Amino acid sequence: MSEAVKGYPAIKWRAGTSARESDNLVVEEPLEIRLGGRRFTITMRTPGHDEELAAGFLLAEGFITNRSEIDEFRRVRGSKGEFEPNALDVVLKVDSRDLSERLKRNFVVSSSCGVCGKTSIEALQRRIDRLQGELQITAASILGLPAHMRSAQEIFSATGGLHASALFNLPRPDAPSLIALREDIGRHNAVDKVVGYALMHDQVPLRNSVLMVSGRVSFEIVQKAAAAAIPILCAVSAPSSLAIDLAEELGMTLVGFLRDSGFNTYTHGERIVM
Amino acid sequence: MSEAVKGYPAIKWRAGTSARESDNLVVEEPLEIRLGGRRFTITMRTPGHDEELAAGFLLAEGFITNRSEIDEFRRVRGSKGEFEPNALDVVLKVDSRDLSERLKRNFVVSSSCGVCGKTSIEALQRRIDRLQGELQITAASILGLPAHMRSAQEIFSATGGLHASALFNLPRPDAPSLIALREDIGRHNAVDKVVGYALMHDQVPLRNSVLMVSGRVSFEIVQKAAAAAIPILCAVSAPSSLAIDLAEELGMTLVGFLRDSGFNTYTHGERIVM
Repeated sequence: MSEAVKGYPAIKWRAGTSARESDNLVVEEPLEIRLGGRRFTITMRTPGHDEELAAGFLLAEGFITNRSEIDEFRRVRGSKGEFEPNALDVVLKVDSRDLSERLKRNFVVSSSCGVCGKTSIEALQRRIDRLQGELQITAASILGLPAHMRSAQEIFSATGGLHASALFNLPRPDAPSLIALREDIGRHNAVDKVVGYALMHDQVPLRNSVLMVSGRVSFEIVQKAAAAAIPILCAVSAPSSLAIDLAEELGMTLVGFLRDSGFNTYTHGERIVM
Repeated sequence: MSEAVKGYPAIKWRAGTSARESDNLVVEEPLEIRLGGRRFTITMRTPGHDEELAAGFLLAEGFITNRSEIDEFRRVRGSKGEFEPNALDVVLKVDSRDLSERLKRNFVVSSSCGVCGKTSIEALQRRIDRLQGELQITAASILGLPAHMRSAQEIFSATGGLHASALFNLPRPDAPSLIALREDIGRHNAVDKVVGYALMHDQVPLRNSVLMVSGRVSFEIVQKAAAAAIPILCAVSAPSSLAIDLAEELGMTLVGFLRDSGFNTYTHGERIVM
């Protein structure tokens, strides 16, 4: 059993009777991400692949654009000198004044994201490039992604409590090949982890890639995919209004309700060929 | 069509053909919550019931315990004098020094929630009382909650993109009656809205209530239910490890995988009778 799953005693009620059994459930623990020793953010996540999570998160927030900007990941020690499993310090190759500037800019961008969806989109457009390129994918390849993702999932069937995110490379329109799959209690963490994996393997920007997510698509998921330059985003469930508006503005192909039998395209369907 | 749903053009791919249709999708927009004029937080939410959302959120964060502490909700005007649909100012009946103290305390509690799940639980135990009371519910009543919730849902079937949260009063162990049902793109918002509804109707603390949520249960959902003194929490899907740990410590009955045919109990099953 991995550190992502833990057994818990449960009482199962079925047809008028109850029985004691054990259930394997997803582990949720906080992760504190530090930047050069300073507390930056805390996210509730499923343990594992924490460096990828931090790298993907920093990319999405505009702090880094590639692996070379990360100096090192430092483990954090607690008050008794022991390693903290739930804290990670990312040391960037910038001096402290640059880092202060970036933190300030990040705070200003976050603050301006209120008021309305339109201003949220405009704030992101100022730092995320519109998606370019001639990437194409066949409709048959899209239809095959759910089965491709399911076969790569090991944890989901055991717990039912995880979001999955799978990143595919697309050397030809009809040949998606899996780069990485990650699962997490938070859908945004699962995306950060696959993008962080690609970043740590020098594959960002991901201009020839397709991202597939197990659940719904919110504004935040489109933001994360766009920050990594992923031009095609597919989801098992529905996109939100603001996810569609942002994908439209950034030039991203957004596919929703992707099942084995069909799918819906909401934006930039021109990348999909028969 | 309510403001929670919006029509979008879609291309539907089925069995080798594609057709243009319109899809009704869930609206996602930011809401900026202010406290006495000061920016406090921004949450991505589905518009509607914003005052309930703000009230429920402030209760969960420990800023208020009942309706009488809210002086008024003020709509916010933009630069041209027009009302902002995505900003809400909550004026509390405290002087500005008290408010500064509360903001500082809230920040300290949030910051201390890193490091590990155990410290997160201990931080909450310092401000949320352990759940008391002799509330009981029959297993048959629990089994009936999903159908009860579905019949009260109007939006979900049209969009597939919403989380639902339903609050039930329990005057007798076998007679749950619906207090309120809310749907939102964010599962935490749906909980804040039903709790906020109850708070605005002077029903908090909710010591005789059951909360039912449509998806998974994370640490945060247990925290919100406990802050409103709800002793029984039921979910359609799985709880996380930390949700179980927190429910156990706070004395909450946690039910997961609740379907028409059965359910699992993870903590404090003593409230469930045959």
